[in-house]
Amino acid sequence: MSQGWIDDLRAIVGEGSLLLEPSDLEPYSRDETASGVVARLPAAVAKPASEAQVAEVVRFCADRGIPVTARGGGTGLAGACVPSPGGIVLSLERLDRILWIDVHNHTITVQAGVPMGALFAEAKKAGLFFPPHPGDEGAFAGGVVATNAGGARAVKYGTVKRFLTGMRVVLADGTALDLGGRLLKSSTGYHLMDLMIGSEGTLGIITQVTFSLLANPACLRTLVVPFETIDQATAAVEQLLNRGITPCAVEFVEHAAIRCSERLLAKTWPARGGNASLMFILDGSDEEEVMGAAASVASVMEANGALDVLVAEGEAKQAEILEIRSMIYEALRPGAVELFDVSLPRSEIPDHVRRVHELEREHGIPLPTYGHAADGNVHTQSMRVSIDDGVLGGEIKGWEEKHERVRAGIYADAIARGGVISGEHGIGLVKKDFLAMNVGERAVRVMKAIKRALDPKGILNPGKIFDLDGPVTPPRA
Amino acid sequence: MSQGWIDDLRAIVGEGSLLLEPSDLEPYSRDETASGVVARLPAAVAKPASEAQVAEVVRFCADRGIPVTARGGGTGLAGACVPSPGGIVLSLERLDRILWIDVHNHTITVQAGVPMGALFAEAKKAGLFFPPHPGDEGAFAGGVVATNAGGARAVKYGTVKRFLTGMRVVLADGTALDLGGRLLKSSTGYHLMDLMIGSEGTLGIITQVTFSLLANPACLRTLVVPFETIDQATAAVEQLLNRGITPCAVEFVEHAAIRCSERLLAKTWPARGGNASLMFILDGSDEEEVMGAAASVASVMEANGALDVLVAEGEAKQAEILEIRSMIYEALRPGAVELFDVSLPRSEIPDHVRRVHELEREHGIPLPTYGHAADGNVHTQSMRVSIDDGVLGGEIKGWEEKHERVRAGIYADAIARGGVISGEHGIGLVKKDFLAMNVGERAVRVMKAIKRALDPKGILNPGKIFDLDGPVTPPRA
Repeated sequence: MSQGWIDDLRAIVGEGSLLLEPSDLEPYSRDETASGVVARLPAAVAKPASEAQVAEVVRFCADRGIPVTARGGGTGLAGACVPSPGGIVLSLERLDRILWIDVHNHTITVQAGVPMGALFAEAKKAGLFFPPHPGDEGAFAGGVVATNAGGARAVKYGTVKRFLTGMRVVLADGTALDLGGRLLKSSTGYHLMDLMIGSEGTLGIITQVTFSLLANPACLRTLVVPFETIDQATAAVEQLLNRGITPCAVEFVEHAAIRCSERLLAKTWPARGGNASLMFILDGSDEEEVMGAAASVASVMEANGALDVLVAEGEAKQAEILEIRSMIYEALRPGAVELFDVSLPRSEIPDHVRRVHELEREHGIPLPTYGHAADGNVHTQSMRVSIDDGVLGGEIKGWEEKHERVRAGIYADAIARGGVISGEHGIGLVKKDFLAMNVGERAVRVMKAIKRALDPKGILNPGKIFDLDGPVTPPRA
Repeated sequence: MSQGWIDDLRAIVGEGSLLLEPSDLEPYSRDETASGVVARLPAAVAKPASEAQVAEVVRFCADRGIPVTARGGGTGLAGACVPSPGGIVLSLERLDRILWIDVHNHTITVQAGVPMGALFAEAKKAGLFFPPHPGDEGAFAGGVVATNAGGARAVKYGTVKRFLTGMRVVLADGTALDLGGRLLKSSTGYHLMDLMIGSEGTLGIITQVTFSLLANPACLRTLVVPFETIDQATAAVEQLLNRGITPCAVEFVEHAAIRCSERLLAKTWPARGGNASLMFILDGSDEEEVMGAAASVASVMEANGALDVLVAEGEAKQAEILEIRSMIYEALRPGAVELFDVSLPRSEIPDHVRRVHELEREHGIPLPTYGHAADGNVHTQSMRVSIDDGVLGGEIKGWEEKHERVRAGIYADAIARGGVISGEHGIGLVKKDFLAMNVGERAVRVMKAIKRALDPKGILNPGKIFDLDGPVTPPRA
């Protein structure tokens, strides 16, 4: 960047909020994508302190044709916030104010840079809660919307798009739009807000969001139910949903994956027998309601081949179970290449998981698998090291090629079953070469037409989700 | 239309499925918009029998620059399916097949021309239900999506967009897109499906939809709770939601409006005292759960000024209450000009309703008001006749001008309170002159850019939601 440009940018965001040194830029070169191979240094990192400054930075980039990549908490798993060549990172970390919790209408309005952990805490203080829950509470509110982050509670409560009621977003020309409000319903023109959800910073930069909230459940209960096979576990979930019982969350975990997390944390998963567990979170407005639901879950599970039904006693034990489940990803990560994120019709889970383990045997790399049993979202972690009873071992020879083949096999199987290649992580850089194969060339053509209409100069996070001009290989550090 | 064009169209849809006689065209000239003043005869009505024929009709129109307006059940309340000058109506009535009810994944896939009543019945046979419920079950599935029709159950279950999981849509160039599937989660590229929701046939013609379903609640209970004032009723709803009790539906009705419906049906609303009632529908998976919730509702209502709490005994009595509520619109319709549909932060309801009655007194036309108390969607029916204890009287002199002033007043008040001019009916023809005032010129500019990108020739339902080239006055028959 020329000194003139640097001076201009510094005049917008202030002396200390423009980073130029490679060591300062490095943390902004990547997200949490497992392999760590997707990374690229930006030319600069600008940290605006207000929406007006965001708009000025975007106008600066538009005037000069400089790519600008919005960055939230950097917790993404698809490389969506990895900078473009020669581009600027616009970090939203200074837009970190919780603006308004409206206890009458059950909404919370925050700037885009508020971490979800802070949002959850603020809501809880008011006796309210935000149902969608991404795996990493360091994710920023704006990023959760921009990447359509999911979480475990979609079956009972729906995903982020159900709870997003308002948004402010800076467009490619540096103007800001104020969309929605504190409203549960609107049929007032095109749903621009829904178009922004999951657009990964390619159509606009979200600066503020309003979410609707629900009353905090007075009572929560966690159950762990082991099964001999994943097939039995999935069939039991279907029976439960048929009965009209919809838990807050229904996770499935293979015990082989749980072992790794147990080792990392030195904690013990309550179920020992069988190959897989279901983990239920039940919530409700009083103890009686939740205990009634727990009894119903237990009876349906026992009638469908459960080896046991374990109810966590006390908050500490519940927290421990959730921690073991949520740390699987971290436990596997040191030896992982990629975390897959396919979404399927939920009845397809057992056959898909069977196919995953065929690929495991065929290619000789471990593929521990877990996910959201009731909403069909399956996570398989592709490994470059062996795993022995929860302990990561040595690097597997030729893992790169094996991994590519496993990915092709997993995507092909998911698509054949009516699924998609991303349920909640997004496309970003790491999946863009597979988008058209999944949704079809025509759909991608329509997406590109919308991109061109909203960002004619192509400055907003170019090269993510798709390339406007032909495919590009993801950059490797 | 030239004979050549007629022959071409007839070759696509078949001899009996192209209407040209004015008497045959007349039913396709309007929707259910109360005033009946928004109507226009199309040049022809084409009734394709398949998606392939829909695509051929669209290509026919694209090649010749003829406007094409998709039509569902014709139950809309915004004139969105009123034909454009010289245009063709593409009626989806022959795409009326229920294609697949997937009891394992709880989804239903139907052609766009399936009436919601048929969809509800089919789901019920399988022990399942579709929560969003538009007022008129003659609405087609495709139209419900195209207009983002709402209904009373949004607060517990969310709106149509939460339940739409898949769609087939014919674009302006006559190609078809297959979007989504039987999936609860997807982060795989832009959410084109959500963009189509509420786009009123201006971006594509929906030919098929897949909805997710829930298990049919085993138990339903209806409560009617009269209050002295609407303020007390609204405050009581807030207290209830704070307690984590979320009914399936919470309606509010002014007793002045209910009287008209009582007269029409010769049936009696259970509550006599006070000026307004809340009507609750509670649902759950068993009797015990629902009775527990009913007891909680009763205690919160009684603690917040309810004059009485009436629980409907038996299905017949429940059905009667729902019928009286749902027939208010029909009862008022012979004397109504327009049904307003503002959506507000729900705490704003009392002050908005107070403003409505100020306008009533100021301009001297009756403005009976009712709506969805928990989701903030308020319906005021603007009348051109007097009402005396539920009986429609003579025409009010100068009602046209009074109505225009009332509309301006209602919209201004709703917008000042952070609301929108349509919660669930859409913009269509009757509200398009007010769209920019509500969402801002910039947002409308973005909508137009998307319209141009997806429909460069402007053939898909032109002049609805906005005019690409300046405002146009709605046509009057």
